[in-house]
Amino acid sequence: MGTIRITYSVESELSKIDQRADALLLEQAVELPRIALKDAWVLDHILGEVTDISEVGQGQYRVILQQPWITTAANPAQFINVLFGNSSLQPDVILEDIELPQEAWNLFQGPRFGIAGLRHLAGVENQPLACTALKPMGLSPEKMALLAQTFAEGGIHFIKDDHGIADHPFCPFRQRVRACAQAVAKANNRTGNNSVYVPNLSGRPEEIMDQATYCHQLGIRAVMIAPMLVGMPVMASLVDLNLDLAIFCHPSLAGVLRMSQKAQLGKLFRWFGADAVIYPHFGGRFAYSEAVCHGLAHELRRPYADLRPAFPVPAGGIQLNRLGELLNFYGSDTIFLIGGSLLEAGNQLLARTKDFVHRLEMARQNAP
Amino acid sequence: MGTIRITYSVESELSKIDQRADALLLEQAVELPRIALKDAWVLDHILGEVTDISEVGQGQYRVILQQPWITTAANPAQFINVLFGNSSLQPDVILEDIELPQEAWNLFQGPRFGIAGLRHLAGVENQPLACTALKPMGLSPEKMALLAQTFAEGGIHFIKDDHGIADHPFCPFRQRVRACAQAVAKANNRTGNNSVYVPNLSGRPEEIMDQATYCHQLGIRAVMIAPMLVGMPVMASLVDLNLDLAIFCHPSLAGVLRMSQKAQLGKLFRWFGADAVIYPHFGGRFAYSEAVCHGLAHELRRPYADLRPAFPVPAGGIQLNRLGELLNFYGSDTIFLIGGSLLEAGNQLLARTKDFVHRLEMARQNAP
Repeated sequence: MGTIRITYSVESELSKIDQRADALLLEQAVELPRIALKDAWVLDHILGEVTDISEVGQGQYRVILQQPWITTAANPAQFINVLFGNSSLQPDVILEDIELPQEAWNLFQGPRFGIAGLRHLAGVENQPLACTALKPMGLSPEKMALLAQTFAEGGIHFIKDDHGIADHPFCPFRQRVRACAQAVAKANNRTGNNSVYVPNLSGRPEEIMDQATYCHQLGIRAVMIAPMLVGMPVMASLVDLNLDLAIFCHPSLAGVLRMSQKAQLGKLFRWFGADAVIYPHFGGRFAYSEAVCHGLAHELRRPYADLRPAFPVPAGGIQLNRLGELLNFYGSDTIFLIGGSLLEAGNQLLARTKDFVHRLEMARQNAP
Repeated sequence: MGTIRITYSVESELSKIDQRADALLLEQAVELPRIALKDAWVLDHILGEVTDISEVGQGQYRVILQQPWITTAANPAQFINVLFGNSSLQPDVILEDIELPQEAWNLFQGPRFGIAGLRHLAGVENQPLACTALKPMGLSPEKMALLAQTFAEGGIHFIKDDHGIADHPFCPFRQRVRACAQAVAKANNRTGNNSVYVPNLSGRPEEIMDQATYCHQLGIRAVMIAPMLVGMPVMASLVDLNLDLAIFCHPSLAGVLRMSQKAQLGKLFRWFGADAVIYPHFGGRFAYSEAVCHGLAHELRRPYADLRPAFPVPAGGIQLNRLGELLNFYGSDTIFLIGGSLLEAGNQLLARTKDFVHRLEMARQNAP
């Protein structure tokens, strides 16, 4: 039986770090002091070990634990609990990284579409892709559909609902999704493009499964979900439904400062099945650093076990005039999400949308 | 239509705080700059307002927003998104407090048992209550049942699974729960007590609903769930099942440093239906301050709308010899959760358990 290798950053004094690391090990699985651990089977099969402690700065240590995979019950909720359950309540610990044993890939299949599958849906090879958001909350289904149609005519590849677009009385889920899907299909017929509409799923788990089923019935091919908001294990259930829907993940409520973005968005979301992961690009309204953004994009795309690569989707107040800079930074296996900077154009929305898409096409032609 | 009143702590310079507060308002609902907000209905019905900005320290502001209740879609997932979705990703913001309008109580019914209901289940009035945990992970169902029996014979009022006890191959949920429930019932028959067994529900949402239904079929009256681990909206679905099960909430993965414990554990968990909320008491293995613990207990028990009060359940490495101090601190409407400090007793487990329960009975008799 294999083990999970979990890396934490721990603040400690040198004289206490051995004891602190051992306490972390115990906290995350058996949750008992060693003196109370008497069962031989537990000691042999459940108790993991501290395999490395390295000083990485003044009073800062990297602690690596090995926890037996069997502690996770091969279940998404208990898996997260073993990674960062009680220790998330301790301010001296940050979850930095996770490596899984072979048998974990029976639980996690990762992206089912991935970069290649999403490119196929959008009918676009070898160039960076454009994404935008339908908003603001408060528009009627008809107005949302009109926006969706304009974006599709402008050539946007993925047109997603804003993550705050739920099942509101003024814009019910089914009416909105049907209207937007029809509007995008109509525009696609006219333009010959394959713009993909990506509805936002939100609510209690049974509502999400019902929404996903409805999308599938309409022939929709991709949906968005915010795993921290609805529950990461709910995403596992959505994947288990096997509805042939690509999944965009949104980071809402993901501000758990003490879980690294690499571990949370880069690994967990991809392992749970994200085909594309939205996150705030540096320099916008959010505070992710340049290094974090670079690391996240690398993590999502790099070969890992037998998982498909997933798209990074930088977002969060990106102005259209930064696109050149972002293209240099991310390269072409990227979906660029620009919302507000298009919607500000008002009557000129179609023209500005075409400008956005045109710049991405140019990037392909200018590539070596 | 009423509004939610949301209080944030915001770091800012004085010259920028008006703009920062307005950006927070926009981020949490419409997610567009004001210049892109052109729809009259959106401006009238969706756009909230900044109602107060107060300096509370050097570069620290309290910002109060009013967001229209209608933005929440009366749905638990979207409700959390409006409170602290994207802004959770911004390191200069902490969610401090929430007040709801009248119509919100159609969504949240709060504790269905509460303090009075849990006291009734345990058959104990007017004294502090004892809780302990079945652990470590790795014990067989038979060994777990033996522990449960000993604790019940010792007079513990609530005997809960440890939160890491899931549906493991070495201790399957149904076998364990059946064995423990029977063991506690047998002990109750002998002692005349009403010890309550509280199984831990964990997994994907459909697994949790299935586990809850099984518990109900066995005549079990209370269960535990970790809302941040399985998803807060999943808890709403569990309550909607209406299975006459009291709910203990566990704080695993709740280490969102930028959501105050008062808002998260004290309000949200209670509103969603927690009858008892477990949290780390100060001075144990965790870092909650004395003020936070005091405030949490107050928040859970105080009159609020028409909600029943919920039990505070201080826990997290409490040593038995601290019980007198904790009794003074919390008073009798409290469930004291002591696990490791009992289990360390080994062969003397029954005697130490009786000592724990006896001290709580003395507290009643010594009360004025």
